[in-house]
Amino acid sequence: MPLCSAADVLTACDVLATLSCSEHGIDRRYLTSEHAAANATMAAWLAAAGLRIWQDGAGNQWGRWCPAALQDTDATPRLVIGSHLDSVPDAGRYDGILGVLLGIAALTHFQHQAQYHGHALPFALEVVGFGDEEGVRFGATLLGSHAMAGGWQPDWEALEDEEGVSLGEALQAFGLSGQTATQASLQDAPPLGYLEVHIEQGPVLEAERLALGTVTGIAGARRFTVNFVGQAGHAGTTPMALRQDALCAAAEWALAVEALARDVQAGKRSDMSDHSLVATVGCCELRPGAVNVIPGRAALSLDIRALDDAQRDQALDELLSTAQRIAQRRGISVSHQQTHAADAVACDAQLMQAIDTGIASTGQPAFRLPSGAGHDAMAISHLCPVGMLFVRCEHGISHHPLESVTEGDVARALSALIASIEALAAKHTASAV
Amino acid sequence: MPLCSAADVLTACDVLATLSCSEHGIDRRYLTSEHAAANATMAAWLAAAGLRIWQDGAGNQWGRWCPAALQDTDATPRLVIGSHLDSVPDAGRYDGILGVLLGIAALTHFQHQAQYHGHALPFALEVVGFGDEEGVRFGATLLGSHAMAGGWQPDWEALEDEEGVSLGEALQAFGLSGQTATQASLQDAPPLGYLEVHIEQGPVLEAERLALGTVTGIAGARRFTVNFVGQAGHAGTTPMALRQDALCAAAEWALAVEALARDVQAGKRSDMSDHSLVATVGCCELRPGAVNVIPGRAALSLDIRALDDAQRDQALDELLSTAQRIAQRRGISVSHQQTHAADAVACDAQLMQAIDTGIASTGQPAFRLPSGAGHDAMAISHLCPVGMLFVRCEHGISHHPLESVTEGDVARALSALIASIEALAAKHTASAV
Repeated sequence: MPLCSAADVLTACDVLATLSCSEHGIDRRYLTSEHAAANATMAAWLAAAGLRIWQDGAGNQWGRWCPAALQDTDATPRLVIGSHLDSVPDAGRYDGILGVLLGIAALTHFQHQAQYHGHALPFALEVVGFGDEEGVRFGATLLGSHAMAGGWQPDWEALEDEEGVSLGEALQAFGLSGQTATQASLQDAPPLGYLEVHIEQGPVLEAERLALGTVTGIAGARRFTVNFVGQAGHAGTTPMALRQDALCAAAEWALAVEALARDVQAGKRSDMSDHSLVATVGCCELRPGAVNVIPGRAALSLDIRALDDAQRDQALDELLSTAQRIAQRRGISVSHQQTHAADAVACDAQLMQAIDTGIASTGQPAFRLPSGAGHDAMAISHLCPVGMLFVRCEHGISHHPLESVTEGDVARALSALIASIEALAAKHTASAV
Repeated sequence: MPLCSAADVLTACDVLATLSCSEHGIDRRYLTSEHAAANATMAAWLAAAGLRIWQDGAGNQWGRWCPAALQDTDATPRLVIGSHLDSVPDAGRYDGILGVLLGIAALTHFQHQAQYHGHALPFALEVVGFGDEEGVRFGATLLGSHAMAGGWQPDWEALEDEEGVSLGEALQAFGLSGQTATQASLQDAPPLGYLEVHIEQGPVLEAERLALGTVTGIAGARRFTVNFVGQAGHAGTTPMALRQDALCAAAEWALAVEALARDVQAGKRSDMSDHSLVATVGCCELRPGAVNVIPGRAALSLDIRALDDAQRDQALDELLSTAQRIAQRRGISVSHQQTHAADAVACDAQLMQAIDTGIASTGQPAFRLPSGAGHDAMAISHLCPVGMLFVRCEHGISHHPLESVTEGDVARALSALIASIEALAAKHTASAV
């Protein structure tokens, strides 16, 4: 069946949800038989619309429509629409998938428009379903989009999954290789731009009572483990004044993390204006961790993100100084190790404007928001301009079976995507004249 | 060899440390072959001093000396000195053991005094090494001393160890039974009193630069699990103002727990005068507990102890109200479950005075302190008056291979124990006149 409407797209989401290695939820990982089945299913939907289909050397599934008026070559200007087909374990059914399927529906729309109404575009359209964004199988994330952007790293091929199968071996079993993955690069002929539709995975649109939003950029994230080391002791025999309780120090610091990010977002800090800044302590491990022992060690995680890398790092410096001050006052020690670092990615101004136009065409006022989550667009930003359209999801829940979108919002997203592409086409034609 | 000096006692501690089920540390549990070996070793030391020896129906090892001037019957007035022979896993070598061995040394001393110098006591002396205090094997603690105090519970016999062996089966394998354990009760002829020497397992004596202290009582303890339930969410996409972070609520509360106990101990609370009050959060479990997810649930443990049960419960009520207030302000929920409750035990005034006298006789000023840890004396308090003498241990460390005492302190403890018994004898004789 060709995907034409929001209802078609939601049905297709349900079909893909059945392609899982687990009986109890959605679990679809890179280079598995479920991945192959998802690619084949996507190819069938593309073929049903009469679109050209292929799988690239990294296992990403592609479709293409080229207006008849253009010469269909590798050099034809083209716009790529995409997202990912893989999932986390026990996933929802829209994360990634929705963007791929809306891309297919958009290509199908323009193919129909050209075929039956003679409306054409001044560029070709391609849709891509990336094989890996989540990084569940091999630990490293965004493998599919990195390959497309020319960022495939040969040393990734030694990464192993839970069962000791290397990425290199998994590529072979999929009929691919490290060499074909490297050749998936589009560096030699970059597209005009890359558009990604994605569920927000956060509560902002719902709180604003808006179906759609234009993404301004993808926050850069840094992650740390922060270790407070005091002195374990007997909970019954150690007077309060003689304690070096690592948890109490860690608790003070967790509240300082919350307070700083809250103040910045509330506009209460004159020195930090980036309201996209968020900071989270998600893990807390105590040693020895017994009901009757004062914690001698507390290891907290810190995840801090912002669109402005410099302000994120300023906030981070302040928080690490605060940790030192808390530890010093309590006579304990503290140290930190960075476990992850990614700089922020800004969305392209022209693409943002086109998406604003697309959203406005649906009757909703344009609304811009940052993305605190990572997306394929981060990798693709090294290849070409990127833009993203966010769709409201219920309660901001994602990476969970309760992930939910409404048919009305999906219909609005499809309209906005089509209108965004038309806005880009108008601009492209105008600038070519 | 008879145990006569502090050096003998420390050598005996080293000998008992070799009786372990683990190659890598001390691990001696109730009704095991190591328990049998410890009883046999203790019996040999008692026999070497010419003392009467037996094992009771709960597996506790006993020794007895009766002055020749007294009729040696079950009705002879007697003072019992004791502690436990079992250990936690990877234990130190003094917890419990030191008190048993100092008891043997004290009996040996009085037996020698009577034999060679004609000095006798107006009561018999018994020493007991309890088979279970720590409760490692069957979960329930103080099994040996409860049996002596007449508190053996037949339903304990169904408790199972890690390998599925029931307490009833373990008693059988040790040549005992639930019936013999019940018969270990001394309720029909309670002793005059029970004296227990124990390492402090805390840092107070060291901080006071004192070797010894008289215990005023054993704090009552209550334990809880406190569950804060907010809303998990994506760490990157959820603005600070829309979060219901369970960890941040838990962190606020952990600091409130610390602040209340610190204020009470520092004398800053006019409504709570019990300076023995301590409160500890030792466990913190977060769900989902991932670096990039806002904690939706945080479960903290609370351990709160004091000599005054009413003040402990007042503090507890205040802390649970504080938890509610924090949760309410943050729009999340909180609940608690009690996991343990034991009321405080007061030491006997006459025994405390005798121990003060014993300590003063060594040249150290008398010093009194509460016990925040549980001890066999808690169970025995249901049978007869109890008193405890604490011995300084390095850095307050216990339940750890680094547990350490000095020979000088042990020598002082032995002198103080002997002088305490003499003080009790003088009192006993005076009151009998």
